[in-house]
Amino acid sequence: MGLSPKIAIVGSGAIGSYYGAHLAKQGYDVHFLMRSDLEAVQKNGLFVRKGAEEFHLPLVKAYGSTQEIGPCDIVFIAIKSTSNHQLVELLNPLVQEKTLLVTLQNGLGNDQFLAEDYGAERILGGLCFVCLNRIAPGVVENYGHGTVSLGEYGRPAEDRTRSIAEMLVLSGIECNVVESLAETRWRKLVWNIPFNGLTIAAGGITVADILADEGLLDLTRKLMMETIRIARELGYPLKDDFIDYQINRTYPMGPYKPSSLIDFQNKRPVEVEAIWGEPYRRGLKAGVPVPQLEMLYFLLKKITDF
Amino acid sequence: MGLSPKIAIVGSGAIGSYYGAHLAKQGYDVHFLMRSDLEAVQKNGLFVRKGAEEFHLPLVKAYGSTQEIGPCDIVFIAIKSTSNHQLVELLNPLVQEKTLLVTLQNGLGNDQFLAEDYGAERILGGLCFVCLNRIAPGVVENYGHGTVSLGEYGRPAEDRTRSIAEMLVLSGIECNVVESLAETRWRKLVWNIPFNGLTIAAGGITVADILADEGLLDLTRKLMMETIRIARELGYPLKDDFIDYQINRTYPMGPYKPSSLIDFQNKRPVEVEAIWGEPYRRGLKAGVPVPQLEMLYFLLKKITDF
Repeated sequence: MGLSPKIAIVGSGAIGSYYGAHLAKQGYDVHFLMRSDLEAVQKNGLFVRKGAEEFHLPLVKAYGSTQEIGPCDIVFIAIKSTSNHQLVELLNPLVQEKTLLVTLQNGLGNDQFLAEDYGAERILGGLCFVCLNRIAPGVVENYGHGTVSLGEYGRPAEDRTRSIAEMLVLSGIECNVVESLAETRWRKLVWNIPFNGLTIAAGGITVADILADEGLLDLTRKLMMETIRIARELGYPLKDDFIDYQINRTYPMGPYKPSSLIDFQNKRPVEVEAIWGEPYRRGLKAGVPVPQLEMLYFLLKKITDF
Repeated sequence: MGLSPKIAIVGSGAIGSYYGAHLAKQGYDVHFLMRSDLEAVQKNGLFVRKGAEEFHLPLVKAYGSTQEIGPCDIVFIAIKSTSNHQLVELLNPLVQEKTLLVTLQNGLGNDQFLAEDYGAERILGGLCFVCLNRIAPGVVENYGHGTVSLGEYGRPAEDRTRSIAEMLVLSGIECNVVESLAETRWRKLVWNIPFNGLTIAAGGITVADILADEGLLDLTRKLMMETIRIARELGYPLKDDFIDYQINRTYPMGPYKPSSLIDFQNKRPVEVEAIWGEPYRRGLKAGVPVPQLEMLYFLLKKITDF
């Protein structure tokens, strides 16, 4: 991809703006596809906050269409998976022979979706472990973390994976390269399935409320176990004590609201299929009993059907 | 209990007012314990509506305390099970040696609760299959049905059961006598557990919404099966095809909101322990796998914790 790859960020919500702004600040050639924030960002640029720190990117290459951006070397995909049906139309103008597609989207099914149209060999995925919120047009705030786990779709990491990771690290983003993208996705789901789900299904509560409720904490552990069993059946060796690890790392988060809950409370689409539907279907297909994931999935599907 | 038994109705919400008004209209000596509606009923009496029919009971023996009522022959208990902690204090002034206690309350655990304080031999139960709403102080509307299934606690029906049933029938209430009150309770729970529960947990929907949603309908069937399995393990021979029967009889109800949902939407206490908690605990104790009932119970417990 050369020394100065042309980069596009498709979907400039919190995730896209945050990572894209870091790359652009470092001097990379970043082109943002924007919708609602386009005018504000063209006028005032992007602001990124983390605690007392803030950086401002006054001149941002922001566009209202991917036709204006044209062919790129690397495309980071950060739209909600609930808008995947628009993705091919958005991506076509950006993709040339050697374009890499890096999906930063949540849950399962996004790499496959891209692979069907553009071929598996150009697909990478990045899992973002970060608490972000877009607090105003062009203003993104980081409430914690920020690490990206980067891997290839269906293959171990390659040199290009390490090159992209290096770009991110140079730009101030913690990044690690993972040998199994799929296993990393399942590990993240072990947390997301119960916590993103139960905070919505139990009536709009925080992760601290779950940890403080004996019944919900027990459900959390059982949902984690169902998820681990699916992952194992599919060949990813997650251990039982991963449950304790995930529970314990949640206590310091305090009254944290997972992104799905924030989406729900703001009446934005919730990624129900990527986070619950697709794992449920893979569990079913693999013959793993998943009664509680099943229930959570169908409840969330209805609850979030605005 | 003699030819003209003295009757008390403890808890004059929709259920207590409806059945008590029918008995009083027929000439029975009915004394109502009332709270919020006391003044309105003392002034204007009780109004009972069903479709185009209405009857008015201008003079109602309504009281603000059970001390004013004094010892009775039959006490119908129609307070919410969520207020059972107040029950002994309410009942003591009404109970003499031969007083019969007939609980019209929902779910499991109410007969046991009464038996602990007053002895099992005087406890009867009535299951009310009725769609009622108290639409204004002293005004109750029936949207369908009204049958009471009457039985003895832990015993087959006795002559006194048939006498009380006869009183209800004479008063215009359909009533059948059941040989196993417990089995009848489990049969009712097969409907109440999924429909009362999922209409709340899925975000405030009607039974028609459940029937129209493939995923929720499947959950309904699975929750019914879990309930049936507990009942069977406890010795009540419910058959698999009872599920189809319960589903099929729900279609004609249209966009019906179960009473628990109406309670929830009006921020009134929901009988979570009687309808979900107690069945769940009995399932656990009997060693029956109840993952979906477990999940529904703990979600509802949190959702309805205002």
